[in-house]
Amino acid sequence: MIGLEQIREIAIPSKSKIALLVIDGLGGLPHPEVGKTELEAAQTPNLDSLAKKSICGLTEPVSPGITPGSGAAHLALFGYNPFRFVIGRGVLEALGIDFDLKEDDVVARGNFCTIDERGLITDRRAGRIPTERCVELCHKLLQIKVGDIQPIFSPVKEHRFIVVFRGKEFDSNLSDSDPQQVGAMPKPIIALSPKANKTAGLVNEFIAQAKATLANSHPANMVLLRGFSQHPHFPPMSEVYKLKPAAIATYPMYRGLAKLLGMEVLETHASIKEEFAALSQHYSEYDFFFLHIKQTDSAGEDGDFWRKVQVIEEIDAALPQLLSLKPEVIVVTGDHSTPALLRGHSWHPVPFLLYSQWCRPDDVTEFSETSCAKGSLGRFPALDVMPLALANALKLTKFGA
Amino acid sequence: MIGLEQIREIAIPSKSKIALLVIDGLGGLPHPEVGKTELEAAQTPNLDSLAKKSICGLTEPVSPGITPGSGAAHLALFGYNPFRFVIGRGVLEALGIDFDLKEDDVVARGNFCTIDERGLITDRRAGRIPTERCVELCHKLLQIKVGDIQPIFSPVKEHRFIVVFRGKEFDSNLSDSDPQQVGAMPKPIIALSPKANKTAGLVNEFIAQAKATLANSHPANMVLLRGFSQHPHFPPMSEVYKLKPAAIATYPMYRGLAKLLGMEVLETHASIKEEFAALSQHYSEYDFFFLHIKQTDSAGEDGDFWRKVQVIEEIDAALPQLLSLKPEVIVVTGDHSTPALLRGHSWHPVPFLLYSQWCRPDDVTEFSETSCAKGSLGRFPALDVMPLALANALKLTKFGA
Repeated sequence: MIGLEQIREIAIPSKSKIALLVIDGLGGLPHPEVGKTELEAAQTPNLDSLAKKSICGLTEPVSPGITPGSGAAHLALFGYNPFRFVIGRGVLEALGIDFDLKEDDVVARGNFCTIDERGLITDRRAGRIPTERCVELCHKLLQIKVGDIQPIFSPVKEHRFIVVFRGKEFDSNLSDSDPQQVGAMPKPIIALSPKANKTAGLVNEFIAQAKATLANSHPANMVLLRGFSQHPHFPPMSEVYKLKPAAIATYPMYRGLAKLLGMEVLETHASIKEEFAALSQHYSEYDFFFLHIKQTDSAGEDGDFWRKVQVIEEIDAALPQLLSLKPEVIVVTGDHSTPALLRGHSWHPVPFLLYSQWCRPDDVTEFSETSCAKGSLGRFPALDVMPLALANALKLTKFGA
Repeated sequence: MIGLEQIREIAIPSKSKIALLVIDGLGGLPHPEVGKTELEAAQTPNLDSLAKKSICGLTEPVSPGITPGSGAAHLALFGYNPFRFVIGRGVLEALGIDFDLKEDDVVARGNFCTIDERGLITDRRAGRIPTERCVELCHKLLQIKVGDIQPIFSPVKEHRFIVVFRGKEFDSNLSDSDPQQVGAMPKPIIALSPKANKTAGLVNEFIAQAKATLANSHPANMVLLRGFSQHPHFPPMSEVYKLKPAAIATYPMYRGLAKLLGMEVLETHASIKEEFAALSQHYSEYDFFFLHIKQTDSAGEDGDFWRKVQVIEEIDAALPQLLSLKPEVIVVTGDHSTPALLRGHSWHPVPFLLYSQWCRPDDVTEFSETSCAKGSLGRFPALDVMPLALANALKLTKFGA
């Protein structure tokens, strides 16, 4: 497979525009009563009619059978091999809230969670406490001092926050404390290399103090930390692809990831309609648009099949606004599947369509898991999405003599 | 593609069970008179009805166009890249007969064969002499002394045996003596690296003495050696996949390979029915079952189209016993194709089905080469089989943030 170094050699700037619509967690599984997936159950006349003119397939987010996290899945969609370009969740969250990370900072994503009297986790998200409560609790935790440092807190949204350990010779090669399941105890942080021993000690000390500090804050009476990481340095999309890229996303992590790849993150309000409006408003200024819709994934994670159906229908209704701009290339896909039946991300491949004047359409007439499986792109790695989009925008010259 | 190191990071133990039914040499080619492959000609109501609920495809054993040996093909099915995890045939055979290989032992697989007065091979298998005769001849060869060592022999089955050169600084980087065709002379052993020069000399000396010793033992009047190798050290499936794996196989090599990957090899009688019975009997004790059926491959190698059809029908008849155990994941496939028309292994991809509650079934309604080619897994590397099986058993957590 071609790598970023080779793409960089053949990418050329041009006036054509690419719109990449990422419907987070788009793929699903058939509802046992309906026999259809969320996307199949939704009425999507606009997506279906776009599929008719497009080339379709199913993307493998990172590798068959592998359920990706959002960061890894998006990196692959943008053409950055997630096995090679590794970002911790902490860094992503920090970027998404415009936190000014310093070179040596070690940052982790935190969840407020609920533990019972035995210390076992009963809710990994503390009942999704309101963001205001998260702000209060972060403020409370700011008083903690471990060694000679005071960890820095920043609330993100609902139960989520980041914690930053700022000091010298800190190392982020640490295991998570989040066991990713209820009924278990939070795990102690383990240094995954000798260099991280000191940091591991500090973090464990911090967690002990946080537990004491939060003892009376039920349901948010404990913290779970994961994704310890430090600021990575990736080649920006402008250099690799010769694009002027913009991102429209309402959820911090996706904004953060977009920034990391050098995208301009545009202002937008939270509704799907407003996100599409933001794209229209800035259409003349950029030539690549990453438009991210989060609500499908949230509905899937909540196990709400019909809410996911409804969000998909809302996206379909907004689509004509994008179509009216006539970008040379339109890609509609997801970063991964989030079947409501599984209440979480899954390994299933994701419906994909690419429309352009040059796409060589197949005979798919409906945008769905079943139809896209018969599309002429077949099942293909998400890493191929950017080369295909660039090619269809006539933004790649010949490879090799 | 994801590697074992990454899988190890995300694999978690769980109660769900996986049954991997490997029908050796399953794939075939259409019979010129019937227009159907062996699998298509067979009446397989149980496999067909399982395929209806499954996701289907065709596996590429190691790489398109490449005809794999049994060891390489099985390694790939178990998720061990055969380009990286290399086992010689000798080691496989040794493990399969419970031979206690020492660290420095160099072991080769041997065939008794027939040569004519000019030294040309007329039968690579010496008419498949009975195992008892093989035992006698191995005993006879034990008298041979080369340098200061006496090679160790162990009969395997029919014309097959292993020979072990036990000494210091031996190296197995040696060519085969078996030319893999009749009408040719056995080839001299060549050292493939300078370190193996001494061992090559010893082995050639041994072959010369064996020829003399066997001069009057027609049809078994010569030996062919291949697959010189030493004990490799692979990470066991229990560590990588967090499985408790068991193998049911009647043929030594497959038992040996299973052991090498840390599977418990269960006792079984030789018939297909009895192999399925062994699985039922031990069902509660393990969470991964490798059930290997050899007879399809043997029929294919013998060019016996209709015997292969019959074996497939026998497997289909035994299938309900497996289904009644209700494993969370059932995979039915082969390690490679062995079309009766080609009388040997071939490069053709292999019918594959995976059933689980979460498999997102496609519209394949028959288990065959033609139908599986239209399955939504498409043509995919056998290396992806384990990740897919584990994912469908909900034994993998998320990759990446």
